[in-house]
Amino acid sequence: MYPPRTPEPLSDHLTTQILNYQLTHGMHLKHIHPNQPQPSHNITSSSSSYPISTSIFPTPFPRALFHHAHTLQPIYNELYARLSENESWLYNSVIKPLLPVDSFARTLWEIHLRMKSKRGGGYGSDISMGLFRSDYMLHVSGNDDGDQEEEEVEVGISLEESENAGLRLKQVEFNTIACAGGCHAKKVVDMHRYLTRTGAYDGSLSDANGGERKSPIKLSSLPTNENIKGLADSLATAHDIYGPARCDLATKTGVLFIVQPDNFNVADELPIEYALWDRDVPVPTYRVEWGEDVLERTCLGGNRELLFYPHLQGEGSRPVEVSVVYLRAGLEVHEYDAAGIECRVRLEQSRAIKCPSVLGHVLTFKKVQQALMGLGVLERFLDSEEKVSVIRDTFVGMYPMDGDSEEGHYARGLATDHETAWRYILKPSLEGGGHNIYGEDIPGFLLGMISESEWGRYVLMERIRSPVVGNVLMSRMGVEESDVVSELGVFGLCIWKKGEILTNETVGWSLKTKFADVDEMSVVKGFGCFDTPLLV
Amino acid sequence: MYPPRTPEPLSDHLTTQILNYQLTHGMHLKHIHPNQPQPSHNITSSSSSYPISTSIFPTPFPRALFHHAHTLQPIYNELYARLSENESWLYNSVIKPLLPVDSFARTLWEIHLRMKSKRGGGYGSDISMGLFRSDYMLHVSGNDDGDQEEEEVEVGISLEESENAGLRLKQVEFNTIACAGGCHAKKVVDMHRYLTRTGAYDGSLSDANGGERKSPIKLSSLPTNENIKGLADSLATAHDIYGPARCDLATKTGVLFIVQPDNFNVADELPIEYALWDRDVPVPTYRVEWGEDVLERTCLGGNRELLFYPHLQGEGSRPVEVSVVYLRAGLEVHEYDAAGIECRVRLEQSRAIKCPSVLGHVLTFKKVQQALMGLGVLERFLDSEEKVSVIRDTFVGMYPMDGDSEEGHYARGLATDHETAWRYILKPSLEGGGHNIYGEDIPGFLLGMISESEWGRYVLMERIRSPVVGNVLMSRMGVEESDVVSELGVFGLCIWKKGEILTNETVGWSLKTKFADVDEMSVVKGFGCFDTPLLV
Repeated sequence: MYPPRTPEPLSDHLTTQILNYQLTHGMHLKHIHPNQPQPSHNITSSSSSYPISTSIFPTPFPRALFHHAHTLQPIYNELYARLSENESWLYNSVIKPLLPVDSFARTLWEIHLRMKSKRGGGYGSDISMGLFRSDYMLHVSGNDDGDQEEEEVEVGISLEESENAGLRLKQVEFNTIACAGGCHAKKVVDMHRYLTRTGAYDGSLSDANGGERKSPIKLSSLPTNENIKGLADSLATAHDIYGPARCDLATKTGVLFIVQPDNFNVADELPIEYALWDRDVPVPTYRVEWGEDVLERTCLGGNRELLFYPHLQGEGSRPVEVSVVYLRAGLEVHEYDAAGIECRVRLEQSRAIKCPSVLGHVLTFKKVQQALMGLGVLERFLDSEEKVSVIRDTFVGMYPMDGDSEEGHYARGLATDHETAWRYILKPSLEGGGHNIYGEDIPGFLLGMISESEWGRYVLMERIRSPVVGNVLMSRMGVEESDVVSELGVFGLCIWKKGEILTNETVGWSLKTKFADVDEMSVVKGFGCFDTPLLV
Repeated sequence: MYPPRTPEPLSDHLTTQILNYQLTHGMHLKHIHPNQPQPSHNITSSSSSYPISTSIFPTPFPRALFHHAHTLQPIYNELYARLSENESWLYNSVIKPLLPVDSFARTLWEIHLRMKSKRGGGYGSDISMGLFRSDYMLHVSGNDDGDQEEEEVEVGISLEESENAGLRLKQVEFNTIACAGGCHAKKVVDMHRYLTRTGAYDGSLSDANGGERKSPIKLSSLPTNENIKGLADSLATAHDIYGPARCDLATKTGVLFIVQPDNFNVADELPIEYALWDRDVPVPTYRVEWGEDVLERTCLGGNRELLFYPHLQGEGSRPVEVSVVYLRAGLEVHEYDAAGIECRVRLEQSRAIKCPSVLGHVLTFKKVQQALMGLGVLERFLDSEEKVSVIRDTFVGMYPMDGDSEEGHYARGLATDHETAWRYILKPSLEGGGHNIYGEDIPGFLLGMISESEWGRYVLMERIRSPVVGNVLMSRMGVEESDVVSELGVFGLCIWKKGEILTNETVGWSLKTKFADVDEMSVVKGFGCFDTPLLV
């Protein structure tokens, strides 16, 4: 039985321990009051905060599949690095079908074309960097009999058993820009491990019916998480690859975080900055807001150095030469007003290493996942059958929704028919989720809400059928026990230069869990919780 | 010129950096809503929080006096350890004068007498522990000409110069129970050091008039602070001295934090607990609330072991044998209702090492400071002229307010006369400050608010005349530049056993700063800020 039974008032005591831990470890989101732009005018209200959603207990997850996801990451890194270097494939398979229907794809491609034009002057760096996150859910395969019910598979079993049960990792999405959650994920894991080590779960019994079987939560079953170090080390590696400053004006080199204004989730960015400053050889790191702030605070040096003038330096002081541009902004179409476009262009023109560059960025479109399913595509970009096989095994069915191809027509049929639509998710190309249409809502959405000419913006993806398990989730809405499903994200670092891969690593992971009957996963929007796998 | 000039909009940017740092490092106080005792019912409102008050810039402080305060601490530790062992001195000099007028002194002494009686069964441990904090302010001596103005002494000078200027450390108070602020102090120091290292002060100019002199804030002038480690190590030392569990029932030994319910300042306690669990050999640590919670969760074993049943363990599980009782509660008279008294008695009856025991606790009364001024008292308790001399040098004039002694009559005259009262503070014996009467308010208070029979509860203390310096303080009320004064606290650990001192160390420090025209210093009440000394 999971989660373990926590008799009252134990659960309140456990909740208090969690809230205290969150408070003292900065696991909070800011209350943002858009009408109070001046923090100094009212410190209390403009800087108060509330805890991020978390599971009370770790959630069981097959140990072998957890480790398997880590081994997949370098292959995915390599694959996406190679995709980004193949402009014609990218154009034909991803961009061209989106151009007529997706303004964000158009905007990014126009920036790309401008960069290549005389006016743009070419990209400033031939080194590319990705801090990717590949998201997976457990999937019960081999049971395609049309049963609409959630699968009730026991997760607390061995790999062999889970393979017998047909459990697989299936990829939800592959993110190539502003991959978030790393810092929160690490701290929640530390918290669950702390609670385990201190015996906070010892009073929870796994047998509700009379037996006294102790909580199954053991420290050895909870993997450690070093995301903050992993992400900081990644940026430091790129920083080192950039090398010393070229510009005589510059006093030093440093990493530039490009951030969104009024971000309520700074607690997921700042620990990486602190870790960079805290290294034995500190990596200077600065924050600047996307758009006007970048344009005012930076300029290009004679050799395309990106020169940054920190906000808190005196007038007449000398700039920092930016080694790495780390984008935690510029991922949403509304950010690309005139200043946003000029901001992106300036960054791309510079010789700083971009994380990511434009061609890495467009790989975040869901269209890419669908295009990768095409006949021979994986074989073209990966150099071994083994790699092709393990990657393909993470795919679920995905279809284009265009009006031209045979596949598109087939998918349109599936999506508009209530008899079949419930098996699918309709996903726009946007980054970050939250705009998906699920199952039975699809036909009504397609036929009633948007014009047929826009259907091509979407891909149709088979729903992943995750086994459910019990847990107790704590969010702004309260504490609730329910069936839940989890999503495992794996962070990967790849740095490459014209076909040569310089660095390729798995650098972290996150587990997010939501109620099984809720479709969206976003934690910061309140639909999901950060979590720790209880490896079984 | 101090503080350095920060032109707009730099100051907003600096404020934002500070708020972000506080959010991500748990430097927050809880919003407490007394009508929402169940945290699970509304996570957001019951667990939201706001940043603790802090100075924007470090505050200049004489380097030599900062270090001198550290060297004083072991002498003070030794002095207070010896005082606690001399019951007759304690009774005659501190308790007896307070018994008729101070109900808290009466309550504690009754507990002491009960412990010594047959019914009480004697104290359970002959080992005593103090985690003390001695608070000092800078004092301009040798200028007793009755000038009522704040002293305008330049702090940015060498020790020799500050001695020439007559600067001395003068003790504000000596705290022997529940000494707070250690964790916040450490984090604020880390923050000011971070801001310095990252160049956040570089744009601040120390010359307002045209010159471009750079900010005088250098990393080498900001001492590091290891309070959390120091306080955790102190408890671990006592834990080790206690040794292995005596009781067969107990699974292990551990430190018990006795805390106040609904405490909004848990962020000053929890980091010590986390540090104890995080040691290479973890020291198990638990929290229990003062009063009923202690009575329900503990019992005495056959050899007076204090056996504690953690809240989150299952029914029928075995207890932890408490090695050290660390009181962060039981410091206020209202806590001593019937359950509070039984709670204290049970703790004292046990063989656990108490931090502090009752006789250590009563040393926190201001009456002790005054009694130490008596002829020959220091000489009696300290074993060298040198020690006597440096301790006495930290004293300012203090007088009893009783109606019997010659000194008391003299003090009553000073305190009721407006011509002299402005030079003094009237302090009750209570711990923690916040009930003091300052200067010109004293005559009205004595003559109008309380009956003369209660005057003996107070001591009359000369006001310390601190040099003022400029700074910018950030609190719930906003950000304000003003003249400020600082208070340096030094944490000391002492463990002793019947005259033998087992451990005697300086283990940390804190700097608190307030507006010069505000009397109270309490940070958690909003009157002061945590700060870092800029050593000069």
